[in-house]
Amino acid sequence: MPLWQLFTPKDAFTSEEKHDFATRITNIYTGPKAIESIGFSLPRFYTSVVFHEFDPHSFFVGGEPRDKFIQIEVVHIARVTETVAELNGETVEQLLAKYFVLVDEALKPYIADRGYECEFHVETAPFETWRIDGLTPPPPDSEAEKRWAKDNKSSPYTATLQTA
Amino acid sequence: MPLWQLFTPKDAFTSEEKHDFATRITNIYTGPKAIESIGFSLPRFYTSVVFHEFDPHSFFVGGEPRDKFIQIEVVHIARVTETVAELNGETVEQLLAKYFVLVDEALKPYIADRGYECEFHVETAPFETWRIDGLTPPPPDSEAEKRWAKDNKSSPYTATLQTA
Amino acid sequence: MPLWQLFTPKDAFTSEEKHDFATRITNIYTGPKAIESIGFSLPRFYTSVVFHEFDPHSFFVGGEPRDKFIQIEVVHIARVTETVAELNGETVEQLLAKYFVLVDEALKPYIADRGYECEFHVETAPFETWRIDGLTPPPPDSEAEKRWAKDNKSSPYTATLQTA
Repeated sequence: MPLWQLFTPKDAFTSEEKHDFATRITNIYTGPKAIESIGFSLPRFYTSVVFHEFDPHSFFVGGEPRDKFIQIEVVHIARVTETVAELNGETVEQLLAKYFVLVDEALKPYIADRGYECEFHVETAPFETWRIDGLTPPPPDSEAEKRWAKDNKSSPYTATLQTA
Repeated sequence: MPLWQLFTPKDAFTSEEKHDFATRITNIYTGPKAIESIGFSLPRFYTSVVFHEFDPHSFFVGGEPRDKFIQIEVVHIARVTETVAELNGETVEQLLAKYFVLVDEALKPYIADRGYECEFHVETAPFETWRIDGLTPPPPDSEAEKRWAKDNKSSPYTATLQTA
Repeated sequence: MPLWQLFTPKDAFTSEEKHDFATRITNIYTGPKAIESIGFSLPRFYTSVVFHEFDPHSFFVGGEPRDKFIQIEVVHIARVTETVAELNGETVEQLLAKYFVLVDEALKPYIADRGYECEFHVETAPFETWRIDGLTPPPPDSEAEKRWAKDNKSSPYTATLQTA
């Protein structure tokens, strides 16, 4: 997590564009810009991006085909927003405002600049049901998470690596 | 939002049928019947309907292919049900009962009348993460929402248009 | 419900393997092993399993194609975990630990044993919006649920059948 599902018209983007788009989405959550803006950086492989492509007769907006429309459904881990806002010493509204700046920047070249309409929302899943390779992901900023980030994959970790 | 995802057998419906089906679903939330029954009417383009079609060997019910079965996953904005029920002066149970009358009517010709089994549920997403074209959708019944409904698309709006 | 959506590489599994995999997933929730471990057994047809298959250029992990990766999104009915844990006289953590043993066993031959990475999470949907064939599913362990389980499909039921 985060898990992004994009519902797009068929062939809206080339393979290279989807690759670049997914990289831009991953960079919302990972790297120096993420740290500076929203105050954290996730292991890159936490972010999954899936493109569902539809024929016009399988995707309707307001009961009509609408071929310049993209639907985006995101799943975050529950309570992360509240926890991060508290750590940052800001309100959830302030954190979300900065998050949406990153989101809008990431989406701009492939959505707004190409004249696509876009509906976007985030759902949440409880932390305690989140698993990667059968493991509970380590706490934020723990030694174990740093290793996962560096390796860009999971590995078993002991309790002592759960602390920051 | 609402976002409807229908998981159906491949070629269960023709393009024309899917178009009509999506219109029926949109009419659950928009128009005079919606106002009379559930007490509100959304801009038409708020409702997205997506058809995922599956081969029998990619969709299992109880561990078996079940070719006359349709799964429906809906996402609503969180707390809308509670707020609307309060505005209508009724309980959530009363509101949902009326909502399901509309849902069952909308689904009837394509599901029950054709002998399909159907599992249905609604998930919720927090209002504060909902965006259309990079904008926070305007408050219910505001001047801005009326313009969005009339135009059947989003447009930037000022704070003064946020009031009813 | 539960509804399992698996996002897999294209042709990761044969039709027979998907069939067996879906059966294993259904057995997490139904049968003597479920009763012994997590304390309940659902009607088999409550469990839906959907396989979405993707080309490498439509599914990215950390911004890169990652062809040995499977994403699993599960939807459960909200509050079931808490209710079951209470009935079992255990904590949610204890119940989830046993649930994940069943999940890991079900996934092992098709995920871990084949070298797939896997991210997994559970979302929840409120009970009051859950419908099967236009009916509110009967209460757990009620006479009506027993009939649904035996028939492996829904049927109308009266209030007297709602009790255990």
